[in-house]
Amino acid sequence: DAEGLENYFGREYLHRMCDMRTDSKWLEEKESSPNTVFLLFFHLNPFVTSQPEETDAGGLVVKLCRLKRGSVEELLSQPGTTLIFLGVEKDIKPNSENYPNDEDGLTAWFALSVDKCPTEHLKQTHPDGYFLKAPMPGLLQLSENDAGVTAQARSVLAWHSRYSFCSTCGSKTKVEEGGYKRTCLKEGCPSLSGIHNTCYPRVDPVVIMLVIHPDGDQCLLGRKKSFPAGMFSCLAGFIEAGETVEEAVRREVEEESGVKVGPVQYVSSQPWPMPSSLMIGCLAVAISTKIKVDENEIEEARWFTQQQVIDTLLKGNHQMFTIPPRQTIAHQLLKHWIGIQANL
Amino acid sequence: DAEGLENYFGREYLHRMCDMRTDSKWLEEKESSPNTVFLLFFHLNPFVTSQPEETDAGGLVVKLCRLKRGSVEELLSQPGTTLIFLGVEKDIKPNSENYPNDEDGLTAWFALSVDKCPTEHLKQTHPDGYFLKAPMPGLLQLSENDAGVTAQARSVLAWHSRYSFCSTCGSKTKVEEGGYKRTCLKEGCPSLSGIHNTCYPRVDPVVIMLVIHPDGDQCLLGRKKSFPAGMFSCLAGFIEAGETVEEAVRREVEEESGVKVGPVQYVSSQPWPMPSSLMIGCLAVAISTKIKVDENEIEEARWFTQQQVIDTLLKGNHQMFTIPPRQTIAHQLLKHWIGIQANL
Ligand SMILES: Nc1ncnc2c1ncn2[C@@H]1O[C@H](COP(=O)(O)O)[C@@H](O)[C@H]1O
Ligand SMILES: Nc1ncnc2c1ncn2[C@@H]1O[C@H](COP(=O)(O)O)[C@@H](O)[C@H]1O
Ligand SMILES: [Mg+2]
Ligand SMILES: [Mg+2]
Ligand SMILES: [Mg+2]
Ligand SMILES: [Mg+2]
Ligand SMILES: [Mg+2]
Ligand SMILES: [Mg+2]
Ligand SMILES: [Zn+2]
Ligand SMILES: [Zn+2]
Repeated sequence: DAEGLENYFGREYLHRMCDMRTDSKWLEEKESSPNTVFLLFFHLNPFVTSQPEETDAGGLVVKLCRLKRGSVEELLSQPGTTLIFLGVEKDIKPNSENYPNDEDGLTAWFALSVDKCPTEHLKQTHPDGYFLKAPMPGLLQLSENDAGVTAQARSVLAWHSRYSFCSTCGSKTKVEEGGYKRTCLKEGCPSLSGIHNTCYPRVDPVVIMLVIHPDGDQCLLGRKKSFPAGMFSCLAGFIEAGETVEEAVRREVEEESGVKVGPVQYVSSQPWPMPSSLMIGCLAVAISTKIKVDENEIEEARWFTQQQVIDTLLKGNHQMFTIPPRQTIAHQLLKHWIGIQANL
Repeated sequence: DAEGLENYFGREYLHRMCDMRTDSKWLEEKESSPNTVFLLFFHLNPFVTSQPEETDAGGLVVKLCRLKRGSVEELLSQPGTTLIFLGVEKDIKPNSENYPNDEDGLTAWFALSVDKCPTEHLKQTHPDGYFLKAPMPGLLQLSENDAGVTAQARSVLAWHSRYSFCSTCGSKTKVEEGGYKRTCLKEGCPSLSGIHNTCYPRVDPVVIMLVIHPDGDQCLLGRKKSFPAGMFSCLAGFIEAGETVEEAVRREVEEESGVKVGPVQYVSSQPWPMPSSLMIGCLAVAISTKIKVDENEIEEARWFTQQQVIDTLLKGNHQMFTIPPRQTIAHQLLKHWIGIQANL
């Protein structure tokens, strides 16, 4: 971060204004303002349009549809609709004559999730709009700004879709605080007293690490069975309860590859909205080199030389192996490692 | 970590052996081995003894009671008992004649949580044992080894106590994989297909940051109303869905103190089992200095000079303010900052 690294899904295009989540009057005003932007989701997939890229020839840019009040009015009142306050645009617009109600000049954004596919309804107003299919790699086509907003919206919506019952007593819950809290409806439920996490959206911290060979010239990459043919990536795994980042790196590398790790260095982090992970990217120095993969998780793990990584970064998939695209922190960790080595 | 920093609650005294969690035969063997160590918890508080410190005069060392099969046999079969496999001791003991069943020579540890207070039952075998009261600051009296094991056990047990119902459908769940998974008992529940996080213990990532004044000589500390009189600490807050570590630092500092932050540097991390946070400790450089506290969260925030921090670190609470004890990452961040400055 000190070096200005910015990972895909990590840009904060909006100001979250967390303190306004408890101001239901303000939220209602924003909800009914013609100035407000609504993003629509169906099964966690955003409503988008695609346009030819401006500079390049042939490419497509996928853009979130910024819907206005008029287009979502009906959807808002449907049962099964979830509404989440995402934040406000960072630049305050001078109070315009068109929107006299937005006294603060702030343009609010909401995410709206619907139960039934509303394509029919939107065909007239947005004839070229569609719901993005297959989030991976679908979501990777968005601009940095749209990706950041989508990461936030998708993670919180995924939480609503999976956590609509109280995990402490099994009762139904109600949505509060602009979509960032679900409160148990059963009187006397223990989740209603004291501080607990059951009512707040979940974020799962994951370590993802580029393991460097003791010789300094090689790195360890692995592949899962589910990867595209020839693709290798950094090892990764969920941080467990009671673990530090560094211990999780050591444990996951040893579990998955049999390699032992010494020093660990944090590099950068990335939200990964599948559904709600926080990828914590590290460099890790191996203190053993023999590979023995855990075949449940990893199909193959191998040491690759710097030159092999450089070739793959520069020449893409005409090489002996491929790596994940630039939008992934695995890609950025590899680039970071090559960069450090080049500066030595 | 590269500097050998180790935070309280962070030591991994045991090897988790995650791959054995699905081997129910092995787990059962370990459960019935007389070699196995059981830690007992009641309302998330461990069963301990206290002994006079060996070196110092007057101090007390609080130790986890390492119970054996004989002492917990009855408790194990009681309804409302939760059993969690914690791991094995790292040194393999040569297969002893006493325990011919532990063929692998590994000493397993389990955490056992009971619904009803079993003090009566244990009075005979462990007359000086008791359940630790008030986890804070009670837990901070443990040795580094015991603290690490307790962090793991307490976090996972807290999850069981809060997440015994399926959050996706409200049904009951059953415990699996040595206590690291809860599976919905309702046939056809969406939580049973695909990869979801509802069935795994929760870990909440939190940023905690020492904000440095642009002049380099001062740092920003705040106090909550609930703090002991005169105590100031680092600002901290939960990382939200769709956020990077660095953005969470900037947002929380601005929310709580009004100060804007530029560069952020990761320092180290600490599990904090209240109930299950992962504290991600950072240094952050302020790019504005005017303080405006969020009075809901913070009672007061102030800039303190290095000399004031040094005085407090060296002379303890004879000073104008106090900081949290050495077991907290806030304390370690302050020490780290003073250390860096001293080396410049
Ligand atoms: N929060 C979580 N979400 C999904 N899977 C989890 C989670 N925590 C633990 N797991 C397990 O971790 C496996 C993936 O391994 P890894 O990513 O290497 O830790 C999954 O197949 C699950 O069995
Ligand atoms: N996982 C969580 N556990 C507890 N409180 C949370 C959580 N996520 C958000 N919060 C809220 O965050 C507040 C504490 O603020 P902060 O620690 O500064 O983010 C609590 O009072 C809750 O309202
Ligand atoms: Mg793994
Ligand atoms: Mg894992
Ligand atoms: Mg993995
Ligand atoms: Mg806060
Ligand atoms: Mg917060
Ligand atoms: Mg806070
Ligand atoms: Zn409840
Ligand atoms: Zn269920």
